[in-house]
Amino acid sequence: MIQYFSHVDLHSFCVSIFKKIGYDSELAKQASDVLLSADLRGVDSHGVARLSGYVRLWEVKRILVDVRPSIIHETPSTAVVDGGSGLGLVVAPYSMNLAIEKALSVGSGWVSVQNSSHFGIAGIHAMMALPYNMIGIAMTNASPIVAPTFSSSRMLGTNPIAVAVPAGEEPAFIADFATTTVANGKLEIMQRLGQSIPTGWVQTKEGESSTDPNELKNGGALLPLGGDREHSGHKGYMLGSVVDILSAVLSGANFGPFVPPFPAYIPMPTFMPGKGIGHFFGALRIDAFRLAADFKKDMDLWIRSFRKANPKNINQSVLIPGDLERKMEIERKASGIPLLESVIKDLQLLGNKLGVEFPHALTIE
Amino acid sequence: MIQYFSHVDLHSFCVSIFKKIGYDSELAKQASDVLLSADLRGVDSHGVARLSGYVRLWEVKRILVDVRPSIIHETPSTAVVDGGSGLGLVVAPYSMNLAIEKALSVGSGWVSVQNSSHFGIAGIHAMMALPYNMIGIAMTNASPIVAPTFSSSRMLGTNPIAVAVPAGEEPAFIADFATTTVANGKLEIMQRLGQSIPTGWVQTKEGESSTDPNELKNGGALLPLGGDREHSGHKGYMLGSVVDILSAVLSGANFGPFVPPFPAYIPMPTFMPGKGIGHFFGALRIDAFRLAADFKKDMDLWIRSFRKANPKNINQSVLIPGDLERKMEIERKASGIPLLESVIKDLQLLGNKLGVEFPHALTIE
Repeated sequence: MIQYFSHVDLHSFCVSIFKKIGYDSELAKQASDVLLSADLRGVDSHGVARLSGYVRLWEVKRILVDVRPSIIHETPSTAVVDGGSGLGLVVAPYSMNLAIEKALSVGSGWVSVQNSSHFGIAGIHAMMALPYNMIGIAMTNASPIVAPTFSSSRMLGTNPIAVAVPAGEEPAFIADFATTTVANGKLEIMQRLGQSIPTGWVQTKEGESSTDPNELKNGGALLPLGGDREHSGHKGYMLGSVVDILSAVLSGANFGPFVPPFPAYIPMPTFMPGKGIGHFFGALRIDAFRLAADFKKDMDLWIRSFRKANPKNINQSVLIPGDLERKMEIERKASGIPLLESVIKDLQLLGNKLGVEFPHALTIE
Repeated sequence: MIQYFSHVDLHSFCVSIFKKIGYDSELAKQASDVLLSADLRGVDSHGVARLSGYVRLWEVKRILVDVRPSIIHETPSTAVVDGGSGLGLVVAPYSMNLAIEKALSVGSGWVSVQNSSHFGIAGIHAMMALPYNMIGIAMTNASPIVAPTFSSSRMLGTNPIAVAVPAGEEPAFIADFATTTVANGKLEIMQRLGQSIPTGWVQTKEGESSTDPNELKNGGALLPLGGDREHSGHKGYMLGSVVDILSAVLSGANFGPFVPPFPAYIPMPTFMPGKGIGHFFGALRIDAFRLAADFKKDMDLWIRSFRKANPKNINQSVLIPGDLERKMEIERKASGIPLLESVIKDLQLLGNKLGVEFPHALTIE
């Protein structure tokens, strides 16, 4: 059974929860904006469903709410931010704003972040650059569940990359993707449905190819984008590695197999070379390269050319990155955000514990 | 039959050819360095085998040798370079040097290039940043042979990305890969061998999955990294698109389906919104983020941790990006560069035409 909730109601609920754990109104709103944007854009795994996970991290003091992010080193176009063990949901907007400020001043800004935690969906941070006529870039490392080519060890996170590019009359181009073949959320859906999955998504704990969506739970690993060696999984491995290096080796965060886990019940790694998890943000001011008006005219042409490319199937034309999420957002703003029974139960319990009432559903399906 | 040639001899041959078409000694050497580095690193498709292709582009005046690259717009951390219709092999080092200069001054440098041509292997340009204790990034667009997800049209090039990261005691991390499942060169090898290829590499001109390596010649297309939709080919499509946008929409070069072809006998596109092909270069100064010594110590730990990851097969441990190419370079410096009979014939003809003697082989296999 699925119930639909107003995104405004869910946002208020999140704000109240974040205030209960100690954030002021502004930061509570910022964190809630990030969570709800995931739900609105259809990335259910990164929205309100994660709220109680963040609170549990605060309960065990892996997330601190009384320390603000701070700049520990900077140049005109770069900086390293110490997230102060804070919620990635507020460390990320702080850091992206810093990248934007630097881009306003010297053309581009690049901020590597240490001592942070899960920052929600990458896309929403990259999109912060759009109103400034900038290209925005956001990436993060994450706890290890991906095996590099030729290995059975979990060494990398799903390490997503987001790139947001402004256009003129067309909506912005927004790419946002994990550097694995499949997102963990999709795997969980297949597990629930009891369906087998295509090869190239996961491997067993011995490193064998598998079509069983439960292999990750059984000690197996996700495969990097591309899948096996024959299908160039080594390229996904390189891509995930670059994200890890820019986010964590460049900032002094934990990297590769040493990244701390999201679930609060999983023990921290016994050895940690850095602080928290790492992110990397970039902003490129368009008119630091060419007139923004000319760029946008060309982006419109780019987008329209791709939309007009011959479809394989008459019923499915080529999509521009961001199309599906934009459509989903319109739909969900109108009809509400669907939540699974288990997620609702979890949020109601959280509300009870912290004295915040969970909203009523709009409709039940 | 394969003959092996000294890389020094082949380099001299290239220098002489580039001088014959009008480059001075310095630029001729620079272009030859790029070509030979491809041969030494095992990227045979981008080395001396392409020399006569570049000369043919010069013959039809699609490449000009008397115009130097110039900066048409810049800020402290960014620039757009006009390649002057020059050889990408010399436009790229000029532009990468500019990115490095800017990174020395303000922490990072980003250069988007218009009006250029094929720049050889991406990796060698990114590696220029290493001696400066910088992370180097290089990418380029290319003529369209890749179909976006859901389409049968060729809309993108193989659009490679290279990222070079300095380490301490360990050799540098050097990722260099096309954003397609397979490189065109590998496809040509399978064609010659008459072997079928895995699914996910190419599609027919109608957009159907195929295992025939000849499909590209028959009007089909390469697939973006990931392959079909089920294996997340849309992520490769996004990645190739980002390369195209940074290289060409940001610089004012031709993008997507409008990028001019490499072979001089193929007519230019009837509509071209920009100038030539586009590249994008970046340099991030390590100590603009943290102490280079600390970073390198962590990179060594990163590299050693990945080398020690459990291998699936005891005979194949995990590779670090750049390992294979470094090994190949040592091997080929010692035993020579293998050239196919057809490539040798082509270079001998070129030498005869321009009055440059082609070197003798070291050994014949």
